[in-house]
Order: sequence, then structure tokens, then C-alpha cells
Amino acid sequence: MTYLRNIWYVAAWADQVPAGEKLVRRILNEGLLLFRDAEGRAVALRDRCPHRYAPLHLGKLNDGVIECGYHGLQFNAQGACIFNPHGDGVIPPLAKVESYPVEERHDALWIWMGDKDRADPALIPDFSSVINDGNTVVRHYLNPQANYELMIDNLLDLGHTAFLHPDSLGSEAIIQSTRRTRIEGDTIVDELWAPDGDAPPMAQFLFEKFSGVKIDHWLQSTWIAPSLIRGVAGYAPAGRDRADSETLPGLHWLTPETDTTCHYFAALGRNFRREDAQLDAIIDAGVMKAFGQEDMPMVAAIQGELAGVEAERLHPLVLSTDKAGIMARGMLRKLIKKERAEPAEEPSGDAPDLAMVGG
Amino acid sequence: MTYLRNIWYVAAWADQVPAGEKLVRRILNEGLLLFRDAEGRAVALRDRCPHRYAPLHLGKLNDGVIECGYHGLQFNAQGACIFNPHGDGVIPPLAKVESYPVEERHDALWIWMGDKDRADPALIPDFSSVINDGNTVVRHYLNPQANYELMIDNLLDLGHTAFLHPDSLGSEAIIQSTRRTRIEGDTIVDELWAPDGDAPPMAQFLFEKFSGVKIDHWLQSTWIAPSLIRGVAGYAPAGRDRADSETLPGLHWLTPETDTTCHYFAALGRNFRREDAQLDAIIDAGVMKAFGQEDMPMVAAIQGELAGVEAERLHPLVLSTDKAGIMARGMLRKLIKKERAEPAEEPSGDAPDLAMVGG
Amino acid sequence: MTYLRNIWYVAAWADQVPAGEKLVRRILNEGLLLFRDAEGRAVALRDRCPHRYAPLHLGKLNDGVIECGYHGLQFNAQGACIFNPHGDGVIPPLAKVESYPVEERHDALWIWMGDKDRADPALIPDFSSVINDGNTVVRHYLNPQANYELMIDNLLDLGHTAFLHPDSLGSEAIIQSTRRTRIEGDTIVDELWAPDGDAPPMAQFLFEKFSGVKIDHWLQSTWIAPSLIRGVAGYAPAGRDRADSETLPGLHWLTPETDTTCHYFAALGRNFRREDAQLDAIIDAGVMKAFGQEDMPMVAAIQGELAGVEAERLHPLVLSTDKAGIMARGMLRKLIKKERAEPAEEPSGDAPDLAMVGG
Repeated sequence: MTYLRNIWYVAAWADQVPAGEKLVRRILNEGLLLFRDAEGRAVALRDRCPHRYAPLHLGKLNDGVIECGYHGLQFNAQGACIFNPHGDGVIPPLAKVESYPVEERHDALWIWMGDKDRADPALIPDFSSVINDGNTVVRHYLNPQANYELMIDNLLDLGHTAFLHPDSLGSEAIIQSTRRTRIEGDTIVDELWAPDGDAPPMAQFLFEKFSGVKIDHWLQSTWIAPSLIRGVAGYAPAGRDRADSETLPGLHWLTPETDTTCHYFAALGRNFRREDAQLDAIIDAGVMKAFGQEDMPMVAAIQGELAGVEAERLHPLVLSTDKAGIMARGMLRKLIKKERAEPAEEPSGDAPDLAMVGG
Repeated sequence: MTYLRNIWYVAAWADQVPAGEKLVRRILNEGLLLFRDAEGRAVALRDRCPHRYAPLHLGKLNDGVIECGYHGLQFNAQGACIFNPHGDGVIPPLAKVESYPVEERHDALWIWMGDKDRADPALIPDFSSVINDGNTVVRHYLNPQANYELMIDNLLDLGHTAFLHPDSLGSEAIIQSTRRTRIEGDTIVDELWAPDGDAPPMAQFLFEKFSGVKIDHWLQSTWIAPSLIRGVAGYAPAGRDRADSETLPGLHWLTPETDTTCHYFAALGRNFRREDAQLDAIIDAGVMKAFGQEDMPMVAAIQGELAGVEAERLHPLVLSTDKAGIMARGMLRKLIKKERAEPAEEPSGDAPDLAMVGG
Repeated sequence: MTYLRNIWYVAAWADQVPAGEKLVRRILNEGLLLFRDAEGRAVALRDRCPHRYAPLHLGKLNDGVIECGYHGLQFNAQGACIFNPHGDGVIPPLAKVESYPVEERHDALWIWMGDKDRADPALIPDFSSVINDGNTVVRHYLNPQANYELMIDNLLDLGHTAFLHPDSLGSEAIIQSTRRTRIEGDTIVDELWAPDGDAPPMAQFLFEKFSGVKIDHWLQSTWIAPSLIRGVAGYAPAGRDRADSETLPGLHWLTPETDTTCHYFAALGRNFRREDAQLDAIIDAGVMKAFGQEDMPMVAAIQGELAGVEAERLHPLVLSTDKAGIMARGMLRKLIKKERAEPAEEPSGDAPDLAMVGG
């Protein structure tokens, strides 16, 4: 499977890689080892010693230096071999491990799996609307047993919430809502407007005042290629008096792990009841039920049903709720095609797409 | 693997699909969902929503209508979409699920996986000799981890009973028996005659009078292409005085699940001690030991040994006990070849066998 | 994967096949059944009845005769069918099971998987330096989840001991040692000389006098194609006064099981504290920790990383400690090439290597 490579993917929440610890993680089908150097900067190396292919995570991490557990070669945080205990101790020229640019931002570690020269941290999209000093943020990590595109489908399609998450995120009003979807650069903005209905159960729980009364509910989701989503949910008393409106910013980040699995990072921010740890726990439990116990089995079952075939090729039935997802997939296909057609730093084994080059 | 399709297969015992419940079952490599419509008639749909390929069994069944668990599309028992909760609610033309003809007969649900136009219930073979109002019937369902042809081999070859089932079905007399095997239309009739020997342990248990005395034992098995067997076992005092003879009618039905597994339905009828629930339990335990604990591991081990190659291609050693099985396989090959050569309703990707067409 | 076939492999420790018992073992990807004939001689048959491919290990062993559990065909220790209970009882010509020459020597059963005519027991290498009447021998069997070549790499490379086995076999002195590696016929002799250092922890434990003092330590390993290693470890007071030197002979035998797993037989001999069962237990525990808990996970992880590709093809970084292993692999490649180029008794499907024939 071909992935967009010259792009920042989220490798981990920053606190999943504490100083002195190793995190093994597969990204775009490659086995990586994440850890922190002596200064605390997060780094990523290929999880494989160039000598006998021992996984480096079986070795020791000391002051930001990885010692291979098999023969004691030591590699620094950039993947350079800095110590060879054998023979004359000369460092062989081949003794280096592939390293990947990593940036820490928005509580996360962002990794660049493409041309290193182009790894500009300024390209990391802005998620400060969710993760900022004024918000309390509840964060999640899940490992869907499904390709990341199935998760994008899932997240951009709000029509499923009423059926799969009736106890938390869904409502009759969402099914009856109006939707507007537009392209903005490399992003797709999807807006949902569900006036004069019951609030979803989770919103009724978070905002007592919306319980049992009709509200106006809106959602805006922005998909940023290839697999980041920034959203905000709004709630106001029905009739558009927004003096008492409430908003909940959230984000969803997906990173391909293998062709049939992905990493899923989600977060919900709030600027009220900020020190309420019990509320944190309730949100956490609710999200883990909705995403972990409702979405995960569904997307895994679909992945199994597809058996490796891309969903589009099966000519599925399309419903109105699919619009944003279909637009996202289309844009993603174009971006991948474009990237493969570009002159690459390292020539790849794939023939360039001549039609694209000519066009 | 190519299967005969224009034929009735047994999908389930009728009571495996109670009203209001769903049975997920794979048949001829296809994932199906069996349930009952509002009138209680059993139906079978492809277990896959045409929208996002969610398995329909993850949804809800209400009054014979399946609601997809992901987006709430509702399908009736014929697979037609009858409700679309999204957008303008129009039912898209593609919104239908493949359905399969199902007939309920002989306590079982029969399914037709071929051309629907040819699904004539009159083609279901008659098993009323086993399942009828005058008999008490003990029924079994097993899931052999072996191709259905290995199970046909097993069931048509009675020579194995003395070795694999010495405590129940086998006897020295069966090994020494004479056999006659003949073709009758699309069936193969195999007759075994084992005079003047000990009754098999199970028969001695069922009929006390045959315990410790010499008996004449006969068996007749009729294989009906592709995978149904109707049999009767007879026992009489040695010397052919059949005044005190006893008979036990039985059946064995096989349905391909995948290329290396199948569904196995078996039943034994009796017209004596009909209300004896303890006897039911003893028969059940005996059969489950013989079939479940003795045959199942053996055929699964052979399936593993074959590793996907058809047994004939390995040029196995043939013994006299194999005759009926070999004739059955030969007839099955011819029937499959013939079916593929026929002008099909939907053109298949397989080239017709010209030699067959010409012949 | 192509293996050397006209060679003796170790199939089992002799006591893994007690009289009257069956041992199922896969060797060079073939399923075998080992047992003893009526005279107690170990034999090996293909674990598959030629009739219906039932694994013979599911049958009965009586006085050196295997009765197939499915239909009662009986095979003697040479694989000849000696009883057919079915029909007229004639033994069909095809009723035979492949048998393999087996020799019992050095507490082990050696098997010949090539041309039977060439199975000369004199070709079994001599391991009497380890297994002899003057030694107490502690033996092990392990089942590495790695190709046997990865285990040869592991065993011929002593540089890893300091890192993977620091509590038992490794020492700083071994890393700093000098190594000499030479070819002798179809063997490779690797000598290690580590003067004036601390003894490895296991040696300090076995020989109290070497605890806390500097010693001279030497190791000699002889690799005998394709997968046998005979070794001896020596320890003496530093300064080459060998009056108080001690030696420990050992052996390592590898047999391919599948392309990604192997059988590993190891033994350590000693001529001191011979009746000390507690010492046996301590050696056993130490070896099982070093080999079982340290080497096994490492080679299995590397096997997973290689994903079926031969390590050489990945152009790994080479260190000085790899010399003997690389020479062994090179010699093994040549021997396999040579064997395939030889006129074989049974023509194989592989084209002979013409370059080799011409050379």
C-alpha cells in the first residue's frame, strides 16, 4: 500500500515516551524505536541493528544511547554507531541506523517518514484550539484493527453516531441535520447543523442545562490530509440564542501502522470544570466505550470483510453521510499520486505516473 | 475450489434459527446471515451491508427486518432496503443485499446457492425414513476442520469403524463383511452384509437381546450428490430369521463451509423407547464421542497433511473399503464439470469445458 | 529452502524415544515418526499412511509395528505393510511408508534424509570428547523459532556472550580476546584466546579457585558441516601455568525442522564432581537460562525481522566476531550447490548448476 510520506504523522503522545524508556511502534509498515536523547528530545530510529538485525528494543537505553542487546554496538540518538566493542573497535561505515525527524508539539511526537530535507516543523498543522493552556484535555490512544482510511470514513461520517453510539454521541437530530462540505486547500471542512432537537446523551450529561430541552447543535470537522481531523461541537438553546452556548473542541489523528491496522489518537478539550478529575474519568470512560467498544469492533469487522481490497473498488452503495469521507479519499489519492510523480531524493522502485507528470 | 451450486445444501437445523435470533454461517466460502421473517419463514442474506460492508449480524433484528448496526439501513427478509434514515430518505437502487432461497424440511433449513430460478423445493431429497412422526430423532451438528469430501470419504467407508470406533460402531464382522456398491442415477448405493458376528457395541447396548449372541448385521448407505447420505442399519439373529430384526435409520448431511472446513449434520431415528430421554442422552454422548472425538481429529489431521491438495492428486493407496467413496468423488467431479459447462444465467469467469460440451 | 541431504542429522536424543513410545518430529520440513522396533533399534518413518494420509502417530505401536489408527493397516519398522485387514487381505504394492536410516550414537539418534545407499554410519562425526564413559553429561533439547543458520551464526560468534549472557558465559576478556579461524576439510576451527582476565561467571561458579583471580581462558569450536559444533572451553591461572587448568567439553547440534525453526541439541561434559546431581541441576538451570531465555528470544526476533529473506541478501554489517559464521555459511552454500549438481539417485526437479559441473 502506498502512503503519503512527505508529511508529519503522529507517532505517539509525548508522555508515551518518558525519558529513559523505549517505545516500539510500527508506522507505515516500518518497525521503529522511539526514545529520548540525553537532553530529553524525542527521537525515532529503525528498530533494527544493521549488524545481525536484532531488534534494538531488546537492548539497553542509557543516557540517550541504545546498546544492541546482541553484540553491544552502541548507537546515538541520530542512529550513528559510537562504540564497537569488537576487534580493533573501529566503527564500520555501514554501522548506522536509519533515523527519522521527530518534533514534539501539541502534547504529541510528530514523525516524518519521507525526505528528511523537507521535514519542516512549520508544516505541522495547528491544533491549539484543542490543546492549549486554557483547556483541560482528555487524551486517548487506540489501535484500530483496520486501515486508517476506514477510520477516516468513520470519523468524517457523523450519520453513524445515532446507530452505533446512541448512548453517547448520537441523536435523532444529527440524522436529520443539514450538512455542508467544502474543500479548502488540502483540507475538507464539513459542517453539520442540527437545530431544535435533543442534545446527544454525552452533551446532556456534560451540560445539565441542555438536559430535557431542545437545543441547536452544530459540529464542524476539518480533515487535514492525510489523516488529521480537528473538530468542534457546539450546543445552544434552541432558537439560536447563543448567549448560553457551549463548545467542545476535539481532535482525531490517525497514523497507518500496517495496511490493515492504524494508530488512533483522540483528544477532547474543555474550558470548564477544569480541575474535575471525576469528570475526566467519566469522559474517558464514555469515549473508550464509544470508540473502543463500538467503533473498533465495527471497523475491524469491515476490514475483515474487505480482505485487503480497497473499499472503493467494491463499488459500495453511497449515502449522503459519506460525502466528506469520499471527498477526503479522493483528495488523498491525488496527493499520493502527486507525491509519487515528484522527483524524489532517493529514486523509488515505482515508475512515475506519466499522465500526472504531463498534466 | 469449485462446488456444485444448483443444488440444495443444508444450512442449519431448523431449531438453530429460532424466531428473533440471527445465525451467522459461512457456506461455500460466503458469509451468510440466517433468520426468520415476521411470519416465521427462515431466510438467508449475505451477511454484509452494501453500504460500508459492515456485517449485518452486528445489527438488530426486529420483526424480520435487519437494521445495519453502523448506519441504520433496514433490509427486509428478501434483502430489499426498506428504510434509509439519511438525507432525503430515498432508497438508492444499489441498496439491496443478496438473498438465497431457503426451504424448511426434515427439521432443517435447505439453502440454494445457485441460479435462483432453478431453486425447486421438489429437488430436496426425501429423508422421511429417518425424520418422521413415528420416530424419535437424535440430531447433531459438528464443524469438521476438513473439506466436505474428506467427510464423504469417511462416511462411505465403513471399514474404518472397527479401528477408529471400536467401542461403539465397529466390529470384527464389519471388516470381514461383503460389500456391494452400485450407481443409481445421481446416487451411489452401498450395501454391507456382515453375517454371524458380534454386534457392534452400540447395537449391543441399544438392543439387549443382541448382546453376547451372534447376529447378522447389514448396512445400506445411499449417497446423494453432492453430500447427503441416507442410511439404515439392520440387526437380526444370526441365520437370517428376521422376525426379531431391528433397524436404525440415520442420515449424514455435509455442507462446504470453506475449502478446508464443512458443516456436518447427523441424525439417528428410532421407533422404540421413544420417550426415553436418558436413551437420547446416551445416544448423543456415544455419537459425539465417535464422530466428535474420534472422526473429527482424524479428518482434521488428514486435512492438514493434504495442505490443500486434493487427495486424488497424491495418488493414494486404494483399499476395498474405499470403493463407494471413490465412486462418489468421480460422480461429483462429473456433476461439477457438467454444471460449469452449462450456459449459466450469469456468465462465470471459468471457460466452459469444451470436451464436455462436445461429448 | 534447500538443505544438505546426504548427511547425518540428529533427530533426537536417544532417550527421547523410549521403547514402546512414538516421537513425532518434523525434520527438513518432513513429518516423521520415530520409534523402536521389537529389538529396540530406533527407526524413522514418514508420519503418514499411504492410504488416506492419516498421520501414523494417531495409531498404535505394538512390538515395533505401527497400526494406522484409521483403517488398521500395519507397517513394520522398515515401513513395509505387513497386514491389511480389508477385503481379501492382499497387501497392495503401494502399501509402504518411506523409511529413513537411523543410527544410535553419542546418546543420540542420527537420521539420513538423502540417498539411502550412501547412509554410511562411519560418516557420523566423533563426539566422544564430550560423551564418553569418563564424563558426566548434562544434555538439553531446545526448539529455536529460527532457521538453523541463525543458530550457527549465534554459536560460532562468541562475541555476543558478554552482552547477551553477562551472568553466565560472557566476560570482558572474551570481547578483548584474539581469534584464529581456519578451514580444515569440511570443518571450520575457531580458536579464542582471552588471557589475564576474569573468568566468566559460570566458570567461576564451577571452579571456585578461579573466582576473583585473573585467568587465561581459551575456547576451541569446530563446526562440522552442515550444523554440528564440537567445542572445548579451557581455564588456567593467568600466566600460562596450566598445571591447574580445567577444561569443559561441549557440543551443539542443529537440525532444520522447518525453514524458520530448528531442533537444537546441546550437551556439556565434565569429569569432576561426576555424581553431584545438584551440580547437574545448576548447570541445567544455567544453560536453560542462557540458551532458552536469552538466545531463543533473540534469534526468534531476528527470524521475524528477516521475514524469510536469507540474512546475507540484506547485506548486513559485518564485525570481526562474525568471521567463523560467515565462513561456515560460505562452505555450506558450496556443499549444497555441489550436492545438487551431483547425479542423484532420484532425479530432482532442480536443474543442476552447470557452472559447478564445469568447474
